[in-house]
Amino acid sequence: MRLTKQTNYAIRIMMYCAANQGRLSQIPEIAKAYGLSELFLFKILKPLTKNGLVDSVRGRNGGIRLSREASEIRLSEIVRVTEDNFEMAECFGEDGDCPLMDSCELNSALREALGAFFAVLDKYTIEDLAINRHRIDKLLGIDELQKASA
Amino acid sequence: MRLTKQTNYAIRIMMYCAANQGRLSQIPEIAKAYGLSELFLFKILKPLTKNGLVDSVRGRNGGIRLSREASEIRLSEIVRVTEDNFEMAECFGEDGDCPLMDSCELNSALREALGAFFAVLDKYTIEDLAINRHRIDKLLGIDELQKASA
Repeated sequence: MRLTKQTNYAIRIMMYCAANQGRLSQIPEIAKAYGLSELFLFKILKPLTKNGLVDSVRGRNGGIRLSREASEIRLSEIVRVTEDNFEMAECFGEDGDCPLMDSCELNSALREALGAFFAVLDKYTIEDLAINRHRIDKLLGIDELQKASA
Repeated sequence: MRLTKQTNYAIRIMMYCAANQGRLSQIPEIAKAYGLSELFLFKILKPLTKNGLVDSVRGRNGGIRLSREASEIRLSEIVRVTEDNFEMAECFGEDGDCPLMDSCELNSALREALGAFFAVLDKYTIEDLAINRHRIDKLLGIDELQKASA
């Protein structure tokens, strides 16, 4: 049981933007901070921009930023748009072939457990994750970028 | 986010044994009921026998049975022994390379969410999953096997 790499990096990108308050974050700098290819970064950004979590500003000095305050974006929102699916087991889908489909309570137990998982993620916002903001700035090299552009 | 195939089938094997009360369940009959190879079944059984959830009786008329009453085996116990790992994200492990490791609260939020997930699975036993036992007997062909061996 594990979150996808996409979800993991989507959260990190949002944290980068949160730490980089007041400046647009440019794709090359985020890619460098996390050691990712820009291509992979664009792929991860797609569901975030499509679902209105991140705004993208085009142009030479363009970049991305959180579409709302970091304190208003819940961890659960990110996970919901980036995870491929939440079929915990075959019996969540319609084309499973378990002979017990419809006669077993596993499906409903797992749904309840997944609900409890998300109820916790609902409580946390991007701001909560980045409470060590000043340390995060330094770790990502954002403090230097901000000085340079000031 | 999904349980492994191993976990999914481990639960089904335990349900088979629960439905097949009073008789040892033989590997070929379980494999047939679920359309699995016997080899894969043996692989799934390993953590279940090793961790004392299933007893294995050797010999020509051997087979397997639950080591305790179905009402005393919790869904969480099965998932814990069959899932490979519960590192929800890279930052759960020791060899991750995220620069925010130790400065970000994602790890603790995900741990709390995983705890809530397991708290629900703790509430359910194999017996709870098999509340439609008589229907399950029929679906798995156990009623016929029981008549034949009576």
